[in-house]
Amino acid sequence: MKDVRPIGIFDSGIGGLTVVREIRRRLPAENLVYFGDTARVPYGTKSPRVVYDFAFQDTRFLTGQGVKMVVVACHTVSSIALDSLREAFPLPVLGVVEPGVEAALAATRTGRIGVIGTRATVLSGAYERSFAARRPGVSVFTQACPLFVPLVEEGWLDGDVTGQVAELYLRPLIGKSVDTLVLGCTHYPLLKPVIQKIMGEGVVLIDSAEETARTVSDRLLADGIDGGPGPASEPRFFVSDIPQHFRKVGELCLGESMRQVVQVDLEAGGTG
Amino acid sequence: MKDVRPIGIFDSGIGGLTVVREIRRRLPAENLVYFGDTARVPYGTKSPRVVYDFAFQDTRFLTGQGVKMVVVACHTVSSIALDSLREAFPLPVLGVVEPGVEAALAATRTGRIGVIGTRATVLSGAYERSFAARRPGVSVFTQACPLFVPLVEEGWLDGDVTGQVAELYLRPLIGKSVDTLVLGCTHYPLLKPVIQKIMGEGVVLIDSAEETARTVSDRLLADGIDGGPGPASEPRFFVSDIPQHFRKVGELCLGESMRQVVQVDLEAGGTG
Repeated sequence: MKDVRPIGIFDSGIGGLTVVREIRRRLPAENLVYFGDTARVPYGTKSPRVVYDFAFQDTRFLTGQGVKMVVVACHTVSSIALDSLREAFPLPVLGVVEPGVEAALAATRTGRIGVIGTRATVLSGAYERSFAARRPGVSVFTQACPLFVPLVEEGWLDGDVTGQVAELYLRPLIGKSVDTLVLGCTHYPLLKPVIQKIMGEGVVLIDSAEETARTVSDRLLADGIDGGPGPASEPRFFVSDIPQHFRKVGELCLGESMRQVVQVDLEAGGTG
Repeated sequence: MKDVRPIGIFDSGIGGLTVVREIRRRLPAENLVYFGDTARVPYGTKSPRVVYDFAFQDTRFLTGQGVKMVVVACHTVSSIALDSLREAFPLPVLGVVEPGVEAALAATRTGRIGVIGTRATVLSGAYERSFAARRPGVSVFTQACPLFVPLVEEGWLDGDVTGQVAELYLRPLIGKSVDTLVLGCTHYPLLKPVIQKIMGEGVVLIDSAEETARTVSDRLLADGIDGGPGPASEPRFFVSDIPQHFRKVGELCLGESMRQVVQVDLEAGGTG
């Protein structure tokens, strides 16, 4: 049985392309449709109510493309709206928080785990809830890093400024002696070398993109909706805006070039 | 003749509150209505097409509030959509680019002028065109500073990181020996001390908010639509989102507290 319907993946912008990259690495035979809400990015500085509304619009766009599964490749949406999306849509909806939590629990020896993310993700308390539901004893320390996304978008992946910003944000977590750190935002894997250097080699960094790809793979098989072997078509990329700077950062996240990118207007209700 | 209709002011977010502050200082008797598109902020990283669409929605919201004048308190919109707004709406539409340009021309002795702004503002070429139309001989040097807005939003108005980021962005302008620097974004006046220190005391910083308030005042009198003497009511603030961090940065920009802030949903077409 081969289910050739695409997997739908969305994010507030282009950070979710790091998840696309990992899904393509692990599941090269799957057809993929991506939506990035680049006209309204970022979500991580906005209120739960607005994030919730945007998440529903994004998901409706993907289900309109006939997808078999929706991957919420955005930590902010995964933290705020995942349960509601699961209730509202009759197909598997996977987020990026749970895979990271499970990987962190497998990695930690001391039970002291750090989580970094956007302000909205941290304020939501989603990570604390998810850890507590799985292993009540662990100590979870969260830290919002609002400047990390703009730094990545500016292309400043290393250098003095990025190092200093990272040190300011990470110092409290070092003080808590965490042995595992969840990168709770799709942009952060691009800052891995800087973060690893500051946290020290002894701290395990959890890249949610990799873990999410693994979860997607497991779920496709469990539900019997995997695409089977054989070559997939090119991923289809939809965005709500294509600013001048777009391809540079997008290809940094994706790790390859985007052949075709189509601009759509969600507010007008369809492809434009 | 006393025209008590309010002045409408809008921005992509809350940076435009620096313009409200200056208008209130200069014109305490005018009624004001402000709209900040905080659900879709920022505009400065987005494409002209999207900025253009958002600007029309914002202006329609304000004209729906019965305003006598629209002040585009956003450099990105002023750079991209001002002429189109003026053609489309039958009331005075003032931007923040022209007042800054005129003040810079009055201030410069060497004719070497720097302009800093968002990527969208700089890419638009609006400042170069506006300077060339008024005084073809001046040399204009522009520099995008994409991290300045996130730094202000984070509340990091001074300190090592902000100083280093500012130095990286401003160094090319120092190399061009500008004697006047236009702060071409509503957030930037909050970084004035850092910018002045790096540029040196000899360089005149042009704060568009102050200049725009002066232009608003002149235009009200010229058109005979000023509010006359007497006390105005409290400004009315509308935004498309109220995230947790909102008041802190908003009150930083406004220089006073915001008594009442109403959330509206432009996409649903009205106050919500």
